[in-house]
Amino acid sequence: MKSIKIFAPATVANLSCGFDVLGCCLDTVGDEMVISLSSKPGVRITKIEGADLPLDTKKNVAGVAVEALLANYENEIGVDIEIYKKIKAGSGIGSSAASSAGAVWAVNHLLNNPFSPHKLVEFAMEGEKLASGNAHADNVAPALLGGFTLVRSYAPLDVIKLHTPNDLVMTVIHPQIEVKTSDARSVIKQNVTLKQAIHQWGNVGGFISGLFTEDYELIGRSLEDVIIEPMRSILIPEFENVKKAAISAGALGCGISGSGPSIFALSKSITTAKNVAEVINDVYTKTGLDFDIHISKINSQGVKIIK
Amino acid sequence: MKSIKIFAPATVANLSCGFDVLGCCLDTVGDEMVISLSSKPGVRITKIEGADLPLDTKKNVAGVAVEALLANYENEIGVDIEIYKKIKAGSGIGSSAASSAGAVWAVNHLLNNPFSPHKLVEFAMEGEKLASGNAHADNVAPALLGGFTLVRSYAPLDVIKLHTPNDLVMTVIHPQIEVKTSDARSVIKQNVTLKQAIHQWGNVGGFISGLFTEDYELIGRSLEDVIIEPMRSILIPEFENVKKAAISAGALGCGISGSGPSIFALSKSITTAKNVAEVINDVYTKTGLDFDIHISKINSQGVKIIK
Repeated sequence: MKSIKIFAPATVANLSCGFDVLGCCLDTVGDEMVISLSSKPGVRITKIEGADLPLDTKKNVAGVAVEALLANYENEIGVDIEIYKKIKAGSGIGSSAASSAGAVWAVNHLLNNPFSPHKLVEFAMEGEKLASGNAHADNVAPALLGGFTLVRSYAPLDVIKLHTPNDLVMTVIHPQIEVKTSDARSVIKQNVTLKQAIHQWGNVGGFISGLFTEDYELIGRSLEDVIIEPMRSILIPEFENVKKAAISAGALGCGISGSGPSIFALSKSITTAKNVAEVINDVYTKTGLDFDIHISKINSQGVKIIK
Repeated sequence: MKSIKIFAPATVANLSCGFDVLGCCLDTVGDEMVISLSSKPGVRITKIEGADLPLDTKKNVAGVAVEALLANYENEIGVDIEIYKKIKAGSGIGSSAASSAGAVWAVNHLLNNPFSPHKLVEFAMEGEKLASGNAHADNVAPALLGGFTLVRSYAPLDVIKLHTPNDLVMTVIHPQIEVKTSDARSVIKQNVTLKQAIHQWGNVGGFISGLFTEDYELIGRSLEDVIIEPMRSILIPEFENVKKAAISAGALGCGISGSGPSIFALSKSITTAKNVAEVINDVYTKTGLDFDIHISKINSQGVKIIK
């Protein structure tokens, strides 16, 4: 029985200006999974540690994603999945995406890569659909392709890997409060002014140009969200104070990770990212809320084998 | 008296997905201007050929732009301007921008470049303000910086030069009809759905990624405008047929140039661009309307000296 142990990375979606289209992959925050091929057909979740998640394949994002892959594979095979969950569910750093992406990547690897990374994104999106009712790609794409990714289009799906400047480091704070997905969605108005939209696509353009030219100042200037952040940030305690502190400590930019409640800050060096961690730690310590802080370089590879 | 003759290029703004933010510079379509420094203070338009435009400095975009520059220059000097207009006014390929940009570029050159290209964009925008009531930068920026440009932000002004893949060639048809700026504006709704906006900024991201990675197919897929084109194209006779014909002939994409009535098609080679010109010529010949067709590589330099 062939088996591999993998690192299934956490991801930061939206990145301020790029709601629903931009995302990036973290390097030191993620789950571990052991995926094994079996002669016994079917998909089985044999073990889950670190989270209270269903072993039922049809109700588990990793199971659903692997079933989507197997439905497209020529031979009948079996897959056993062990999940060692380290990313907390509902944190806003792609917990479900890590499981979906990790599982399909590992199965594809064990099968000698019959599917392209872009095809794996489609399979993993089935997991996202189960998790949130919405087959979004802005977390599974960076988890599978690594680095920064753009979902140019959903119909047809068109996912593009962008360039990753080497010096970028993420600081992420996860306040351990529950933000219901339904609440995070209901605060978003479905109409925007043309003026706001132009402002936002100017920033998407600036951010992507900054990545390709490694212009860190431009990346920072472009990390601005005039549409979603003003609506969603009201659900995140101390958001404005965290943002102010992060920018004062030298971060290039700061915003909501995915649909929150996690907040990301992007910096140009590990030193700055650590300083940012310290100041946002100070802001959150005063709230009395539980929280985690992660510091991570950008993982330009995506899912990887650890054993 | 120091004097230079320059080529002041036409430009294509918006480029489908990038309303108000993207633009590019043409190489074989443009005006000529002769700019001279004079010991007699003040700005004078001494000659205009090819168009019925005001010689009064305060009413001429080139005059206004140069006055904005001189207001920021330490010494009192004089400037004489001759304009040999080849770009038709109201064509939608940056006629006023060529005059404003050409004039300030030439004066700056004659003064040994005291101002940065980005500062020249600000001066030239004063000419645009006179021409349309709106100090937009999406034509003057590519005229001055060359190649493809992004206006990331207007307040503060933040203009970025993008990468220019070498094989791109523009075909532009200018139907000689008058589209009033007020009409071109009044058809645009000031609210859009969030879904349309996301679609559009996915394409802006895809287009810019395509430029940097020289992925011509991606550039083509991204040349899509779900917001402005459906509204504005009703003012341009045979727009849909021109677009269909251009795409059938191999163009990567096709859309409205600026606020129209010109239509641009972007192709990967001069051969394709010529084929595109032929088929859109056929479409327009049937209308009985007068029209011009231009074929041009992308001018990555911008305004240049010709004598």
